[in-house]
Amino acid sequence: MIELVANRYGKAAIRLVRVTRDPGGHHVRDLTVAIALEGDFDAAHTDGDNTNVIATDTMKNTAYVFAKDHLDGPIEAYGRALAEHFLGEPQVDVATINVRAHQWNAIDVAGTPAPDAFVRGGEGTRVATVSASLGGVLVEAGVEDLIVMKTGRSAFSGFPRDRYTTLPETDDRLMATRLTAVWRYGAPDLDFDATFAAVRATLLEVFADHDSASVQESIWIVARALVERHEEISEIRMVLPNLHHWLVDLSPFGLENDREIFTPTTEPHGLIEATVRRGEG
Amino acid sequence: MIELVANRYGKAAIRLVRVTRDPGGHHVRDLTVAIALEGDFDAAHTDGDNTNVIATDTMKNTAYVFAKDHLDGPIEAYGRALAEHFLGEPQVDVATINVRAHQWNAIDVAGTPAPDAFVRGGEGTRVATVSASLGGVLVEAGVEDLIVMKTGRSAFSGFPRDRYTTLPETDDRLMATRLTAVWRYGAPDLDFDATFAAVRATLLEVFADHDSASVQESIWIVARALVERHEEISEIRMVLPNLHHWLVDLSPFGLENDREIFTPTTEPHGLIEATVRRGEG
Amino acid sequence: MIELVANRYGKAAIRLVRVTRDPGGHHVRDLTVAIALEGDFDAAHTDGDNTNVIATDTMKNTAYVFAKDHLDGPIEAYGRALAEHFLGEPQVDVATINVRAHQWNAIDVAGTPAPDAFVRGGEGTRVATVSASLGGVLVEAGVEDLIVMKTGRSAFSGFPRDRYTTLPETDDRLMATRLTAVWRYGAPDLDFDATFAAVRATLLEVFADHDSASVQESIWIVARALVERHEEISEIRMVLPNLHHWLVDLSPFGLENDREIFTPTTEPHGLIEATVRRGEG
Amino acid sequence: MIELVANRYGKAAIRLVRVTRDPGGHHVRDLTVAIALEGDFDAAHTDGDNTNVIATDTMKNTAYVFAKDHLDGPIEAYGRALAEHFLGEPQVDVATINVRAHQWNAIDVAGTPAPDAFVRGGEGTRVATVSASLGGVLVEAGVEDLIVMKTGRSAFSGFPRDRYTTLPETDDRLMATRLTAVWRYGAPDLDFDATFAAVRATLLEVFADHDSASVQESIWIVARALVERHEEISEIRMVLPNLHHWLVDLSPFGLENDREIFTPTTEPHGLIEATVRRGEG
Repeated sequence: MIELVANRYGKAAIRLVRVTRDPGGHHVRDLTVAIALEGDFDAAHTDGDNTNVIATDTMKNTAYVFAKDHLDGPIEAYGRALAEHFLGEPQVDVATINVRAHQWNAIDVAGTPAPDAFVRGGEGTRVATVSASLGGVLVEAGVEDLIVMKTGRSAFSGFPRDRYTTLPETDDRLMATRLTAVWRYGAPDLDFDATFAAVRATLLEVFADHDSASVQESIWIVARALVERHEEISEIRMVLPNLHHWLVDLSPFGLENDREIFTPTTEPHGLIEATVRRGEG
Repeated sequence: MIELVANRYGKAAIRLVRVTRDPGGHHVRDLTVAIALEGDFDAAHTDGDNTNVIATDTMKNTAYVFAKDHLDGPIEAYGRALAEHFLGEPQVDVATINVRAHQWNAIDVAGTPAPDAFVRGGEGTRVATVSASLGGVLVEAGVEDLIVMKTGRSAFSGFPRDRYTTLPETDDRLMATRLTAVWRYGAPDLDFDATFAAVRATLLEVFADHDSASVQESIWIVARALVERHEEISEIRMVLPNLHHWLVDLSPFGLENDREIFTPTTEPHGLIEATVRRGEG
Repeated sequence: MIELVANRYGKAAIRLVRVTRDPGGHHVRDLTVAIALEGDFDAAHTDGDNTNVIATDTMKNTAYVFAKDHLDGPIEAYGRALAEHFLGEPQVDVATINVRAHQWNAIDVAGTPAPDAFVRGGEGTRVATVSASLGGVLVEAGVEDLIVMKTGRSAFSGFPRDRYTTLPETDDRLMATRLTAVWRYGAPDLDFDATFAAVRATLLEVFADHDSASVQESIWIVARALVERHEEISEIRMVLPNLHHWLVDLSPFGLENDREIFTPTTEPHGLIEATVRRGEG
Repeated sequence: MIELVANRYGKAAIRLVRVTRDPGGHHVRDLTVAIALEGDFDAAHTDGDNTNVIATDTMKNTAYVFAKDHLDGPIEAYGRALAEHFLGEPQVDVATINVRAHQWNAIDVAGTPAPDAFVRGGEGTRVATVSASLGGVLVEAGVEDLIVMKTGRSAFSGFPRDRYTTLPETDDRLMATRLTAVWRYGAPDLDFDATFAAVRATLLEVFADHDSASVQESIWIVARALVERHEEISEIRMVLPNLHHWLVDLSPFGLENDREIFTPTTEPHGLIEATVRRGEG
């Protein structure tokens, strides 16, 4: 016997820009949205019966229509409105909405922000994932592609040495990463924008201001601080590629290179991930 | 109380090429390898104690050394050798090795394959993931980035219509996808190369030779056929983006467009995934 | 005084697929088209006067309409039809059409090509550029992203050594590249498909079957052979990144590495380009 | 007779990071460098004679060594030092150095910039190209990948309509682009950092604060302003893809969409380029 044991479908990479034309200036929201549904869709697979299959094109249309009415506030609220809308269909058990927000800043014109011209910028991308099911609404927020570097206070030593080990120990290396952090909120209603800004600031601050014995320890220190200082967070997952910066050997040229000239690399890279949670105790 | 609830680390994007210089001609293996470990690594996080932390640089070195001795056969055997090596360290509970194989074909010179010149090609990328733990060795194989298209025998109709639905029904659409399929083998020892070739051939053949009522049904038909026809497979997971090809409206130019001229798109795309398993019954 | 000294505009990345439904099976053409015009467009810049500005959206529409009537033959003919169409507008001095053709192969079903299912493949991308002006029509053809490798018969030695030189000489290295070759045809009317196939075959054959003292010499040997053997070609330009494959140092592990295990890299890479022409003499 | 009519070679994608450890805090320079030489290299092609071929590996080494001594000032000075170094070799006629600078900002810790932790950011990438020949030194500077958007004061109308034209006229569209601008300095010695900052500020300011009848007119207005206001600039070339944002048709859902909800797209895109020069008059 052959069974369908899991399935999930939706629309990904829905791109949308909303321009709000206030008297004091325009506001731009620029989002990439993904929608995924789980539920009673077995017949679509095994019988070619599409009775329950909300078309992914319909999902896209819904994302655009909801952008008109549900995007005045944070992306988490927009995601929740979409998630609850799709959960309202009887065949849907879980609706998951992922939103990535691309940042546009008003262009500075002689000290004043332009009312209607923007430059894309930002350090990392703000993301939110809202998932709605009969069990309730779960909201996660986070940052992706936040590229950060410590040029000091980063070591890596004391690791085991076997016949395959050539890496020297170091008490002062350069550590760089393209950080992903996604945290779960304990409640579905929050001041999402203010909380995001505060969590992101803590994340950067603790990353900058700690002594690192390894990427692993850095993750723990940053993640623990986020959970400690932000009671809205119940759990956080971090993924940090270790984007190695190798000291260039300048000795063939009669030069010393005291942690000054590095080659940044992306292949291969370390990849370190961990999940940290607020316990019951 | 704040807890470390999960962690995992390793080296990704290890690039390696092995050239074997046989009298009859050279052979090229071109791999991208990722290694990930789980186990007793809590102290590295919470105490900055690296005693147990096998350096990811050591992992990379090991991948190169093992390429000399363990890469005469299939990539699954190479992956298994690496996985079992790392599982041999007492602090390791699970070692997972992912291998992607990039294809090089001997260049044809006047009807004869060149002994030492190659062109990169291939339709999709062969992948294998071997994971070793106290529970045993689990081998998965598959293809990624296999781009395929049905220009006939593909429909999508009978889906529900609500106020957000504008997609017309169709009994003859173009269906294109960048297919990922990963199947689990029931046993860790097989003729992996022959099995892979046979499974891949079935996959393409069934994809080509079936009537599709939806991407969901196509996944089911293909996945079921793979499990039915290849007893080595116990489970298969497929992920199919629906890379929409929209019919261009040529009516403003006084022309009919009877399923002839399409605009291929990548944003947004449908995303359909399912897992099919051989049951006990 | 401030002058507009050059300008050019058009539409790029027009994606189009054409399906021809013959009784014996479907045929798929999958193209990416770029259109660029030069001519009397100064007023659009300096006066905001769009009287002469053929909208790039119109160019896109034209590319789709012409795909119906002018795409039964080679991409060069399609490009020429578009180029001559735009040159027909009085304000246009030069119309340049670039076409990239993505390859789809019929899927094999039990030894027979499927009539309506395809897999994307191919080694490199075929390209054509047609440019029409009062001076006539110029046709260029070529390949891009043709990734090739020589595992033998490739050396690099005899280069100068100064205080910045550390590279050892070698009489047997691995040479890999992502080759671009664009050749100019001496006449605008040819059997473009047959000529392309023949030139491409020569290119691969000579690449495989020559001794290389450097990438520079390889370019010369290949380019000269193409011009010598294919009288249709008047000039050829080749661009070859040198995608270094570094021999892994296995001596720390007590192992020899006699040109067997390599690390392929993309950053940094050599970049070698040259143009070779049939002279008058 | 077959001739080598042009050739050029070098090393591209040299990645380097320099950390300067001042008492008040670290400074990070993060560059991607490309080096290209033209000169007496014919024998390398036609005779396999590498006597004159400075190895591209040597170029890479030189870039690292020069980063120690010549990177305290602007990237233009670093590029010039490298260019003049290579021009010093007798076989070199032209040495061209391209430098792209990636921006790192000190992380803010409770209102104070961290001395040794950075976040990658920036709006666009600063670039410089220095080319040295017997004729002298030519310095170009610019920005790449500066993504900007006008949500007002942008129109496109008055263009010709033929049977292929469907685009409606508009007096209020959204205009977005990923701008490249490269300007030539009239002299090889300037306060490059201050000049770059001033030119970039003008560029953004004029982009924000003008009425656009087309991308063409915008290029002219911006480029002319740069040449007018910055006497250091003798010529400027701008390349602007028109990244169309299409108004979503919400009428099927009974909703008006008055320039509010857009779909951003990248394929196809307009592509408009022009060069503007300070004339003699």
